[in-house]
Amino acid sequence: MSKKPKAGAALSNKAVDALYGIAEEIYEELDGGQIPKMKIPLRTKANIRFDSKHAVWKYGSLMGVRSAKKLKGALMLLRTMHVLEFIRDMIRDSKSSTLREMYYISEGWDIAKFHAQEESNLLAEDLEVITQLLREDFKLRPEESGASVIGNLTLEEITRNGDRKRINCRDDVGDAGYTIPYNVEKEKVKLIESDAKFILAIETGGMFDRLVENGFDEDAKCILVHLKGQPSRSTRRLLKRLNEELKINVATFTDGDPWSFRIHASVAYGAIKTAHISEYLATPTAEFVGITASDILNYELPTDALTPRDIGALNAEMTDPRFNDEFWRTEIQAMLQLNKKAEQQALAKYGLDYVTDTYLPEKLGPLGLM
Amino acid sequence: MSKKPKAGAALSNKAVDALYGIAEEIYEELDGGQIPKMKIPLRTKANIRFDSKHAVWKYGSLMGVRSAKKLKGALMLLRTMHVLEFIRDMIRDSKSSTLREMYYISEGWDIAKFHAQEESNLLAEDLEVITQLLREDFKLRPEESGASVIGNLTLEEITRNGDRKRINCRDDVGDAGYTIPYNVEKEKVKLIESDAKFILAIETGGMFDRLVENGFDEDAKCILVHLKGQPSRSTRRLLKRLNEELKINVATFTDGDPWSFRIHASVAYGAIKTAHISEYLATPTAEFVGITASDILNYELPTDALTPRDIGALNAEMTDPRFNDEFWRTEIQAMLQLNKKAEQQALAKYGLDYVTDTYLPEKLGPLGLM
Repeated sequence: MSKKPKAGAALSNKAVDALYGIAEEIYEELDGGQIPKMKIPLRTKANIRFDSKHAVWKYGSLMGVRSAKKLKGALMLLRTMHVLEFIRDMIRDSKSSTLREMYYISEGWDIAKFHAQEESNLLAEDLEVITQLLREDFKLRPEESGASVIGNLTLEEITRNGDRKRINCRDDVGDAGYTIPYNVEKEKVKLIESDAKFILAIETGGMFDRLVENGFDEDAKCILVHLKGQPSRSTRRLLKRLNEELKINVATFTDGDPWSFRIHASVAYGAIKTAHISEYLATPTAEFVGITASDILNYELPTDALTPRDIGALNAEMTDPRFNDEFWRTEIQAMLQLNKKAEQQALAKYGLDYVTDTYLPEKLGPLGLM
Repeated sequence: MSKKPKAGAALSNKAVDALYGIAEEIYEELDGGQIPKMKIPLRTKANIRFDSKHAVWKYGSLMGVRSAKKLKGALMLLRTMHVLEFIRDMIRDSKSSTLREMYYISEGWDIAKFHAQEESNLLAEDLEVITQLLREDFKLRPEESGASVIGNLTLEEITRNGDRKRINCRDDVGDAGYTIPYNVEKEKVKLIESDAKFILAIETGGMFDRLVENGFDEDAKCILVHLKGQPSRSTRRLLKRLNEELKINVATFTDGDPWSFRIHASVAYGAIKTAHISEYLATPTAEFVGITASDILNYELPTDALTPRDIGALNAEMTDPRFNDEFWRTEIQAMLQLNKKAEQQALAKYGLDYVTDTYLPEKLGPLGLM
């Protein structure tokens, strides 16, 4: 197997130090005759607060405690120690693993083995929350595939062999675009330059391909990013970095339903599951140009009726602080009243060019993006 | 919008001719005072036969008739005429559309509009079966994203602007690999060269990334292809072309469950839904190196119990002619008896290198591939 050193070795020591810190604390509690415990912020909608410095939503001060007083808590602390060791070994050996692999690795941990992958995923998130580092620093990655990118953006990726590859996401790729790797931090992906006026982040593959075929990236001078549904962390991180480092505005173009509103929220305001790292992942200035209840009426779009689950999700959004503004309150209420949702591809009702000739210019124009 | 002519114009005329042929037949029946009808082979497991010339499974001679005698059949024929016109217009305008867009386009067809996307998808398949052409010839494409490829393979893609881009799937791409476009026919993607000894087609993203990180493509001199679950038509077509044109053997590496066996079957023997084009899509010499019931026992892998749906699927495979050989009968029966399934990532039980250091060499060695 190839044993060349990988990028990111310096950062990883920060991770090792942080993980040793956790182990040390538990050791000292045991050594001092105390029952060991870990304190972790509650990760619920009730515990997210607006961080005005970064203009994103983050966890508040509500804390939960995981103590070894009960068997379940003790097992969880034992698992934590095993995970710390596993991560340290990966960093030492320049390896990484999927969350699924970590779950299977625990088969060798006897009574400490995980019983379901949710347990091991949750623990990986706990470690992030406690250490203020990213899962990527711990060499853990999800299975989800990263976004596709098409447009005049030049970047440099440092590949598994340590080579630097300069890639232009218009000139050096096929029609399926450049696929971002799971880790898009600076030591892995360097953003070089772009002349794009904005980034259009698109929910569905069908619409992404439509805009590629219609040449919208060239006509509107923009970068097209395929979110692939609820965007992965690496996708949100890339949007954030493009916005911050290259000063390019972001607009999200989604279906018109409550789940798509959440896609926008996770891009713009931060996701509830990852609120501890919102300042890395969220792009607060991102604009929404997806389908709204008003669009369904104005454009007379083909619709489907809301399901009970859709209605529940819309109602939940009425109490979600991220949607607590004039625009979202109005649109969510209008959708509930209309009792209908619509897909972005429904614009094809008026032909294959309607979205690029009419809809997007009408939406992006007032925002100064077209 | 960009109006340069796209690749494939010559082939598309064949498609237009074939579609006019269908319209003509219906016209003549109407003109001769007959009730118009279309005859289509039945697309069921009961109607697939082994085609020994191509060594794949294809539809047999059982036919169904769609007649205008009943209202439902008449509407379907009317829809067919609209679809023929839509496809002709796309070919004329150098456009293409997703199956979803075609469904929405039908909103403008008054009483002929589709009521569910299954109807329009089915009609697209009907047209393939009748004309012996590919959906790609009709400019219709699915939403599914294509396979990722990593390895020393050089190809040339003719992009949306008519440019020829030469891409080496090891040297010119990032760690996420080259993503194939939805159309991988010769007029779109030319296979130039490869020194690979075999192609490993991998079911899950986690395992694909594992083999990429472990450098298995370089150590074993192979091309890694991520199937992304049940592989899209373009993925299967690419495997077939690599096998046929560059003479590279294919091996599939999947989870060990009935659904994964079907992934192998669709790669090697042909899928039931697309049996009319099996000779384009299936690679009969493809070998299976995925997890079997024997592997679960031999490697003492972590398992899950079979669900009732799994058991139903295994029982269905016992009467599926594609699995009617010694190897599959034995393994399917063994899995039913064991009442367990396992994922390919379960090999991580023995560490992150076990799959590349031990499992794959043990499986590929006896096949002469390693």
